[in-house]
Amino acid sequence: MKNYSLRRLSDQPILQTSDVKPSIEGFSVLGAFNPAACRVGDEIILLLRVAEAPISEKGWLSIPIIEETDGIPQLVVKTFREPTDDYDPRVITLDGKVYLSSISHLRLARSRDGIHFEIDEKPFMFPTRMDESFGIEDARITFLEGKYWITYTSVSEHGPGVGLAVTTDFQTIDRVGMILAPPNKDVALFPDRINDKYMLLHRPMVSEIGKPSIWLAESVDGIHWGNHQFLFGASGADWEFQKIGAGPEPILTDDGWLVLYHGTSRNTEYSLALALLDRDNPARVIDRSTTPLLTPELPWERKGFFPNVVFSNGWVQAPANSKRSDAIWVYYGAADSGVGLAELIQE
Amino acid sequence: MKNYSLRRLSDQPILQTSDVKPSIEGFSVLGAFNPAACRVGDEIILLLRVAEAPISEKGWLSIPIIEETDGIPQLVVKTFREPTDDYDPRVITLDGKVYLSSISHLRLARSRDGIHFEIDEKPFMFPTRMDESFGIEDARITFLEGKYWITYTSVSEHGPGVGLAVTTDFQTIDRVGMILAPPNKDVALFPDRINDKYMLLHRPMVSEIGKPSIWLAESVDGIHWGNHQFLFGASGADWEFQKIGAGPEPILTDDGWLVLYHGTSRNTEYSLALALLDRDNPARVIDRSTTPLLTPELPWERKGFFPNVVFSNGWVQAPANSKRSDAIWVYYGAADSGVGLAELIQE
Repeated sequence: MKNYSLRRLSDQPILQTSDVKPSIEGFSVLGAFNPAACRVGDEIILLLRVAEAPISEKGWLSIPIIEETDGIPQLVVKTFREPTDDYDPRVITLDGKVYLSSISHLRLARSRDGIHFEIDEKPFMFPTRMDESFGIEDARITFLEGKYWITYTSVSEHGPGVGLAVTTDFQTIDRVGMILAPPNKDVALFPDRINDKYMLLHRPMVSEIGKPSIWLAESVDGIHWGNHQFLFGASGADWEFQKIGAGPEPILTDDGWLVLYHGTSRNTEYSLALALLDRDNPARVIDRSTTPLLTPELPWERKGFFPNVVFSNGWVQAPANSKRSDAIWVYYGAADSGVGLAELIQE
Repeated sequence: MKNYSLRRLSDQPILQTSDVKPSIEGFSVLGAFNPAACRVGDEIILLLRVAEAPISEKGWLSIPIIEETDGIPQLVVKTFREPTDDYDPRVITLDGKVYLSSISHLRLARSRDGIHFEIDEKPFMFPTRMDESFGIEDARITFLEGKYWITYTSVSEHGPGVGLAVTTDFQTIDRVGMILAPPNKDVALFPDRINDKYMLLHRPMVSEIGKPSIWLAESVDGIHWGNHQFLFGASGADWEFQKIGAGPEPILTDDGWLVLYHGTSRNTEYSLALALLDRDNPARVIDRSTTPLLTPELPWERKGFFPNVVFSNGWVQAPANSKRSDAIWVYYGAADSGVGLAELIQE
């Protein structure tokens, strides 16, 4: 993968937390990050992950969660006395139950130049199901057979699973359901059928034995998945030691399927890297980065809701009128707080 | 579920470790347990899990594992100096890699009376794939549309996933592949389509957040699975506090789908219990045991390769000439060592 490089288009984020209005009165936005990306007509669309939390009064902790009232899942805010001992500000056990302190939804942003985005004031997809009771996170968009297929992490007390929703116009949306059971995330759906099968990359989480690794699965309808196969794991290099997971939809190049993925170091620093898979048999890994293409270096990549992260789940062909129209524009979440933009160039 | 009871047919195991010959010279059998069960003609067939290990010389540890040689997965034995400090005799980290000290395969046993079994000398299914490199365990057999569908746990360094193989005659076997990615196990496939969909129960394992719980999934072909839904979790009762997982294939009764499952206590004692699911909508739980139907009480249920276990993944209609031919015969693994037999009776 030596001939690829990933260069920031700016040393500033193109979007940050303060640009996004909370979707609910009395809530504040903790982060707007990890956008899915696609082209729709002459626009570039981002689906941002927006993490929000109720503004808590001093000494109290207000927890947002989807609960069933009369059989209908809806957002409620539960208020607890703030624990007096040290606690993890993101995942908290209260009265013997695990909660997240924030809840994420997906927010749409549109742009003509791919740099200046108009952000919707209301959510595009807000958690509405019990398997989304802790929120929906980190979408990917794949344009496949005339439709936009949106895969995302559905988080609940049962852990993170993978949801699928389909749209043709980003106005109406068809929620298909959970396509991969917990614990799993980081699904990248291929934009074409291969040997007549739909295919995706996924990232099982680890219980008892195993290490996080990227797997391949196939489907006859894009909804039901099987033939799960291990594809590749973390190389063990410093920057790719702990977790690993696929980013946006693979892109078909002359050399094969180009896959953008993240790796994390021992200290949970997230970097970006590439892999190349065989065009006709994506179970065959042709090449992989030996050094990361992007690591968190700028202040807003190093400090935020979760520090030291560059994470991408959205890329598009560069606009025709941009300096390098043969580049791929990579949108990346920075420190779980804002969004940066870099271009991927093949020398 | 008050009107059901589960009574041992004998206070002795019907099968024990010493009844089973090792499949490989120089290996010993550590346990023969957790059988799948079905009827084939006038025979009852069990598919036993047989755990074997190479006989190690003093001061050494011989580890069985499937590895690729010239691209072909095959059994190899790796020999290490025995660790001088205390170690878990089942899961061992050596030279920085995790290994299991034994490898399991599936062994066929046949009987006309359901009590006296003739055990094959050779494996019915031996691990042959890299996703089975640590072994294949705990099968379930479902007779569905004229075929026997065998689901089993495929264990490798990536954790346990769920494999599927299909046979019509228990002679030739078609290995379909991994139908559910790690970490997952305890799959019980329904013996009929429901609303035209194939359905199964599964048990995702837990990573970071969540508790072990039983899920439902559906399929259009029995091979690719989706629409994953949480069904029920451990009740929190003493005997059903920690793990929970489905046993053999659900049986359709006048009241709905009867599900046999296991629950474990805080001290990892395994008990058996029942649940009843709606006939047309198995996502609806009609009833559940509030007390266990069987707990480990006899010496050979309390002591063994893994102590204090009664675990069932095989049941059949009682033979026509037995005392209670309306009963269901429940084969159960005892202490990961032998097999007991109990009858399930509705008063």
